[in-house]
Amino acid sequence: MSYWPASSSTTPRYAGPVSFFRLPTLSDPSEADIALIGLPYDGGTTNRAGTRHGPREMRAMSMFIRPFHHVTKTSPYSTHRVADFGDCPMNPLDIGESLDLITDHFATFKVAGTRPLTAGGDHLITLPILRALATDGPVGLIQFDAHSDTNDTYFGDHKYTHGTHVRRGIEEGLIDSKRCVQIGIRGTRYAPDGNDFAENAGVTTLYIEDVYRLGIPGVIAEIRRVVGDAPTYLTFDVDGIDPAYTPGTGTPEVGGYSVFEAQQMVRGLKGLNLIGADVVEVAPPFDPSGNTALVGATMMFEILCCLAV
Amino acid sequence: MSYWPASSSTTPRYAGPVSFFRLPTLSDPSEADIALIGLPYDGGTTNRAGTRHGPREMRAMSMFIRPFHHVTKTSPYSTHRVADFGDCPMNPLDIGESLDLITDHFATFKVAGTRPLTAGGDHLITLPILRALATDGPVGLIQFDAHSDTNDTYFGDHKYTHGTHVRRGIEEGLIDSKRCVQIGIRGTRYAPDGNDFAENAGVTTLYIEDVYRLGIPGVIAEIRRVVGDAPTYLTFDVDGIDPAYTPGTGTPEVGGYSVFEAQQMVRGLKGLNLIGADVVEVAPPFDPSGNTALVGATMMFEILCCLAV
Amino acid sequence: MSYWPASSSTTPRYAGPVSFFRLPTLSDPSEADIALIGLPYDGGTTNRAGTRHGPREMRAMSMFIRPFHHVTKTSPYSTHRVADFGDCPMNPLDIGESLDLITDHFATFKVAGTRPLTAGGDHLITLPILRALATDGPVGLIQFDAHSDTNDTYFGDHKYTHGTHVRRGIEEGLIDSKRCVQIGIRGTRYAPDGNDFAENAGVTTLYIEDVYRLGIPGVIAEIRRVVGDAPTYLTFDVDGIDPAYTPGTGTPEVGGYSVFEAQQMVRGLKGLNLIGADVVEVAPPFDPSGNTALVGATMMFEILCCLAV
Amino acid sequence: MSYWPASSSTTPRYAGPVSFFRLPTLSDPSEADIALIGLPYDGGTTNRAGTRHGPREMRAMSMFIRPFHHVTKTSPYSTHRVADFGDCPMNPLDIGESLDLITDHFATFKVAGTRPLTAGGDHLITLPILRALATDGPVGLIQFDAHSDTNDTYFGDHKYTHGTHVRRGIEEGLIDSKRCVQIGIRGTRYAPDGNDFAENAGVTTLYIEDVYRLGIPGVIAEIRRVVGDAPTYLTFDVDGIDPAYTPGTGTPEVGGYSVFEAQQMVRGLKGLNLIGADVVEVAPPFDPSGNTALVGATMMFEILCCLAV
Amino acid sequence: MSYWPASSSTTPRYAGPVSFFRLPTLSDPSEADIALIGLPYDGGTTNRAGTRHGPREMRAMSMFIRPFHHVTKTSPYSTHRVADFGDCPMNPLDIGESLDLITDHFATFKVAGTRPLTAGGDHLITLPILRALATDGPVGLIQFDAHSDTNDTYFGDHKYTHGTHVRRGIEEGLIDSKRCVQIGIRGTRYAPDGNDFAENAGVTTLYIEDVYRLGIPGVIAEIRRVVGDAPTYLTFDVDGIDPAYTPGTGTPEVGGYSVFEAQQMVRGLKGLNLIGADVVEVAPPFDPSGNTALVGATMMFEILCCLAV
Amino acid sequence: MSYWPASSSTTPRYAGPVSFFRLPTLSDPSEADIALIGLPYDGGTTNRAGTRHGPREMRAMSMFIRPFHHVTKTSPYSTHRVADFGDCPMNPLDIGESLDLITDHFATFKVAGTRPLTAGGDHLITLPILRALATDGPVGLIQFDAHSDTNDTYFGDHKYTHGTHVRRGIEEGLIDSKRCVQIGIRGTRYAPDGNDFAENAGVTTLYIEDVYRLGIPGVIAEIRRVVGDAPTYLTFDVDGIDPAYTPGTGTPEVGGYSVFEAQQMVRGLKGLNLIGADVVEVAPPFDPSGNTALVGATMMFEILCCLAV
Repeated sequence: MSYWPASSSTTPRYAGPVSFFRLPTLSDPSEADIALIGLPYDGGTTNRAGTRHGPREMRAMSMFIRPFHHVTKTSPYSTHRVADFGDCPMNPLDIGESLDLITDHFATFKVAGTRPLTAGGDHLITLPILRALATDGPVGLIQFDAHSDTNDTYFGDHKYTHGTHVRRGIEEGLIDSKRCVQIGIRGTRYAPDGNDFAENAGVTTLYIEDVYRLGIPGVIAEIRRVVGDAPTYLTFDVDGIDPAYTPGTGTPEVGGYSVFEAQQMVRGLKGLNLIGADVVEVAPPFDPSGNTALVGATMMFEILCCLAV
Repeated sequence: MSYWPASSSTTPRYAGPVSFFRLPTLSDPSEADIALIGLPYDGGTTNRAGTRHGPREMRAMSMFIRPFHHVTKTSPYSTHRVADFGDCPMNPLDIGESLDLITDHFATFKVAGTRPLTAGGDHLITLPILRALATDGPVGLIQFDAHSDTNDTYFGDHKYTHGTHVRRGIEEGLIDSKRCVQIGIRGTRYAPDGNDFAENAGVTTLYIEDVYRLGIPGVIAEIRRVVGDAPTYLTFDVDGIDPAYTPGTGTPEVGGYSVFEAQQMVRGLKGLNLIGADVVEVAPPFDPSGNTALVGATMMFEILCCLAV
Repeated sequence: MSYWPASSSTTPRYAGPVSFFRLPTLSDPSEADIALIGLPYDGGTTNRAGTRHGPREMRAMSMFIRPFHHVTKTSPYSTHRVADFGDCPMNPLDIGESLDLITDHFATFKVAGTRPLTAGGDHLITLPILRALATDGPVGLIQFDAHSDTNDTYFGDHKYTHGTHVRRGIEEGLIDSKRCVQIGIRGTRYAPDGNDFAENAGVTTLYIEDVYRLGIPGVIAEIRRVVGDAPTYLTFDVDGIDPAYTPGTGTPEVGGYSVFEAQQMVRGLKGLNLIGADVVEVAPPFDPSGNTALVGATMMFEILCCLAV
Repeated sequence: MSYWPASSSTTPRYAGPVSFFRLPTLSDPSEADIALIGLPYDGGTTNRAGTRHGPREMRAMSMFIRPFHHVTKTSPYSTHRVADFGDCPMNPLDIGESLDLITDHFATFKVAGTRPLTAGGDHLITLPILRALATDGPVGLIQFDAHSDTNDTYFGDHKYTHGTHVRRGIEEGLIDSKRCVQIGIRGTRYAPDGNDFAENAGVTTLYIEDVYRLGIPGVIAEIRRVVGDAPTYLTFDVDGIDPAYTPGTGTPEVGGYSVFEAQQMVRGLKGLNLIGADVVEVAPPFDPSGNTALVGATMMFEILCCLAV
Repeated sequence: MSYWPASSSTTPRYAGPVSFFRLPTLSDPSEADIALIGLPYDGGTTNRAGTRHGPREMRAMSMFIRPFHHVTKTSPYSTHRVADFGDCPMNPLDIGESLDLITDHFATFKVAGTRPLTAGGDHLITLPILRALATDGPVGLIQFDAHSDTNDTYFGDHKYTHGTHVRRGIEEGLIDSKRCVQIGIRGTRYAPDGNDFAENAGVTTLYIEDVYRLGIPGVIAEIRRVVGDAPTYLTFDVDGIDPAYTPGTGTPEVGGYSVFEAQQMVRGLKGLNLIGADVVEVAPPFDPSGNTALVGATMMFEILCCLAV
Repeated sequence: MSYWPASSSTTPRYAGPVSFFRLPTLSDPSEADIALIGLPYDGGTTNRAGTRHGPREMRAMSMFIRPFHHVTKTSPYSTHRVADFGDCPMNPLDIGESLDLITDHFATFKVAGTRPLTAGGDHLITLPILRALATDGPVGLIQFDAHSDTNDTYFGDHKYTHGTHVRRGIEEGLIDSKRCVQIGIRGTRYAPDGNDFAENAGVTTLYIEDVYRLGIPGVIAEIRRVVGDAPTYLTFDVDGIDPAYTPGTGTPEVGGYSVFEAQQMVRGLKGLNLIGADVVEVAPPFDPSGNTALVGATMMFEILCCLAV
């Protein structure tokens, strides 16, 4: 049993149903090995919103993605059942309820043994996903991002935002901070000790300067060293990439890596014990050329190829 | 048996599957009374293309349309089975083959007694649709449009374009020219006798000046007089509307009617013997605000309410 | 004592500080008669967000507004102290807290006897403003809008949204439903009885069809009849206007009135007992030409001229 | 001898050389009766610039204009030699030199008896054109515009701007103020007596309210009454139209007439003694949909049809 | 005899006629050594169209290109007669006829010994150009591209598309596959053996990974090795470049080389035996910032400098 | 005494007053050590204008910049009083008067010993700033730019433009040409000897090819060698960066360095004797994604960190 994208030799890629990579849409988690899930929630955003429209545009732009990878010459669909499972329930008016709805939804995939690859939404969504997936103990975290997302609170004592979720994940025992690595961190910060929580917790921070100092193979080696062979989650914030490539994001941070470099890094993660992944922070209202959504969709495919081994 | 849009009190309108009016997507024509069909074909375009992306954007913008009409307080879904039947097959590289594919596809709806409401695509698509629907004799045609579309040929002797299809429909005996009325015609023309074919054939042309001279009730009366009670097809080219409302079209023509006036005219057609309809010439690449697609989707709903009586 | 816009004969309008109408920015409510306040909150939005950026863009576009009205040849600044009071505190992560912060902020203006003219933000903001202003008993409400905003709940039992605030205002005794009039209501609705609450409560609904049936003078007369001479609040949702003029809004509804018609209607309200007003639902991320923000700023000035009598 | 647009039945309208209406480009004024001239100068602009790009975009959009008018069924090319004469010399760094270069250039057309129809550029260009054309005494002026453009100075004592040129023209004896009529004036002004110069000089001001009070036929009658049969120049500022139609302009003013109304007014001017005309203030950088340039090009054609009688 | 761009010290670059590099426009091939030709045809496109507008926008953006190259300090206009020859005839409604029209047109340049540098249009246009130019035997091909364009058919058995033309060129004996090199190939493919035809035919494929492995000097050496000194055609598809630089293209493929790298590679080809070249796949409707057209125009100039030796 | 940005943990970054980095706005130069100044003047522009809107958009985008630099973990606000001093007076209609107004304004900062960091505006503004600052003798100049800006005249004998100001600065004895270094020069030029003035004067030109040959550390060393320890001014034209990052500029030149490379180069200048700096040529009307303004604001912060040592 396998699922394949609708043939573009019959139906042009701009025609036909819109789903991730033109794959079938299913609803029963047990019918797939890897589930592609949209999570159009941006209630954790502290500045420019709009990532609620991310899944729809990433699906639309994923029409450009054909089944086989040009480096490996293999397709994830050859070995794994991959399908689109539509959008996860959430409530745009209620953060707490949304967190619960998301966790409940992903728990059904966890139970079915189906690994999720999610399109956000803002970065807060990683937290409720981990609550569903990391029920067997803290997991490793590979985070491509411009921001550490380990702030404590925003706007008073509000603890659940797209800038605090990694801290929450560590505090809640979902993320093993010693097996957490962040790649591409840069930009101005609120305080001189802005990264103290992460450093004290043992998180490995690869600033953008470190990325260029180590080189891509060095970064890959460092990531693999940090997370090892134990269960690991991968979260890819498109703002880790330079905003020349991904302007359509809520908190752009100039001076990031290129998409090609991001592809190289992700491809270097094959064989790791990945329990799931997400691509977040694509904000179509700020993406006039559509390139951010295209990058998001392509990175989903690159990650899918890592999951499908 | 009835179909209803996905509830937006549960799933926000920007989430969930993208279909016309958030209705279910079906494939068997016999399971619906009215079929919503996308036809992403723009191979008949003589100037700016891009209407191939029309159905996808009209589906996306149709998220704004709720089930009940505010004037009639009724819903088409209460009395008729209405569903999205996906996109019609066509071939972007071959006009002749596309005409045949389209006619074959719509013939299955004709056989099933399911009336189609189609989202184009360029205006050429009306011709192959009529070839499928007008098999019992010429039908009346109500055409909202800035252009008469009764030219003979383009670029030599090419007969099948979005500027010649009405002439072809009359020549082929699909359209009863005496029961054909065009509303909103205007703009410059290629020759002083540019409308001679239509006039000689007995087509009723309501120039934009006539629209304002008659007033909306007068236009409605004139349309009803021309088409009478016999089977009639309705085609709505969004360029009949002023491009302040619908800039996203291939051949914009300034000086048209407003969307509200268009709504009033369409609402006045209730009770006619409509065998099908289409909304054409929405070209998203030229529609930066998305309003053209929103207008297209809303006019589809207005027409749906006329069909569902 | 009076405040005047920075002279554009010295400083070009694209230069210098950005404030409403280039007026001074103050912080003590007692120093003005009419306060211009930004309220960049869109947490009550149920579909496309982005009105959080409305105040900033309306301020920017208000550079085009000179001091004197061309019909009356008077300026509000001649008779009233008018100034920009910056943005109202709110919390993008917490609806309840935001409602309280807004009410507290506007209460200081109520106490000072300074009438607020607010730039939203989504339409929910009218509710906490009224909680601050309507402390002496229910007030009349003049609502320019495509939507009645009298739904009960969204997404379960969530009561505070930009589609329910008028109902809440009536239920809380802030709005005198008998003295409430809505102008421009149209578009599809969730249920056949979608407007029952308003009708049962005695709200006067002027559908868009009523607007054209009555004519602008008739609409003005009807508004004045409904609200009479008692204290009245005016709320102007830019989606009451046709989206050809105001595409940059969260819930566009085709088929509305023109900006000129809106100006005529607002000008007809001079002399009413207005205790405050707002212009809401300008969403810059969906406004590529900037015209929506310009319309919003201009309507603010028209309303200001009504307040300054 | 006549010139005709390149045939779009051979060459698609998006192909081939870009010139006004796809007409030939000439350089000797004596070879045409009516000269189409680009004047990409915006040095007189006091706020948002960009009309320097107006001629190029109006030429591009004029591809949509076919040779025959749908109301008269005649073509200006049947009776008059009409051609594109390229762009007028000017100097973007020097207002005074530009004024002279422009006057010198248009003087050659005056000498040749060739009437110019010019695409601006900002509105200041009307002044140097009139210096070339009104050498036989003051001429009448028909001005479609939101602004009176009779201010005295800007930024100190600077007298030559797009907001002062009409005053200069009257002062210099180029414009007969008694035969000057302005249509569509509106919007806020710098002073209560902002229009005193025009009124004292005997200019006929038709505010937008007057336009709707008189109705289009009344406006036409009034224009004809004011200018009579003597030589008259027509200047069409696209900001006279509502910015829903023409957002791409430097000083948008909401609440204007529609394009259809503008077309009706211009068509009503047939038979007047027109010595030349211009269409100004199209600013492509603020025109994301291109509709402003399309309106500009279409109004040029409508005016051309008035000149070609 | 030489032709030079219109002086921008007299006429600002945004003014005056629009032609490639502001050069004169000619029609007789014998009057130039190198012909710049627009080919606004996108009938071979299988996904997003719009490259029919490419030549017009590349001409507009070529205003930025001055005559002398900053590295060589020479100008192609010093040694070669270079002019704009307008747009090549084609028929947007008929692929077969277009192929013939294009070949016929370019044959006149071949006969005249004038080498063409063409602005597309979609990539299919390379095929009919080669049919005109490669009449003396198969030529070498240097192809900058993300895609190999060696698929066999699309949408059934349709053989002439922008994804199959290189295969056709090899099959027709126009391209010497042993002297064919493709630079920048990447992205997903339809089948694991998606590149088998090219490999079996002996085409040299430099994947994007190879480009970075070899380094730019290595790539140049490899290109020169493959094509040698025999007649060679150069085709530059802008989607070979990363879409951060060139989003305005029909089939964007993330992860490409930079424009600077492309410039370096093209500059390394000086002295090769180039019989002609093209720059294709610039699609302005998807290019909101205009950068894609600017890149296209600049690459045309870089290639022109290679031709002009 | 120090000034700090408004806290974004209280007020979201999209709310509150718009100033550079959300700092207080002051008017007395003596109250700060470093003055942030807007200079919305583009009267020296020879092609596409629009940089008059640069300061406003850079202020808006500077909301993204937090107080502490992630590499140094220090903030310029800790050691220096930094504030926004609003926009500098100028006259959009008069270059000469503008030059004087600018020099007079900056002279007050020179007198106060407050170093200015200016947001342009076009590049001409550097000249009048240097006239104010270089009163103690010629200063060194570090110029990041695609263009040398050492042309002599434009459009006849006009000497003051954004392409001639560096030559003027050298001629006037403001710039010590031996201590002048330009980084990133590239692109086509008007004449083979286009750079002769600079070379003859002893200016050090680092073409883009030199930048990549030397590497970033080498470039930094070369800059430091050229300017030494004496007083030096830094001018940063955003068109030095590749237009994939900064499309919103008047004279884009493909093939530049990345923003990250620009950041590295600027960071390498710490400890130099900088008397002031500017960031110029951000043209928002050509910047649909806003990234150019974000880059401009971020580079201002990087430069600020160099000034604040």
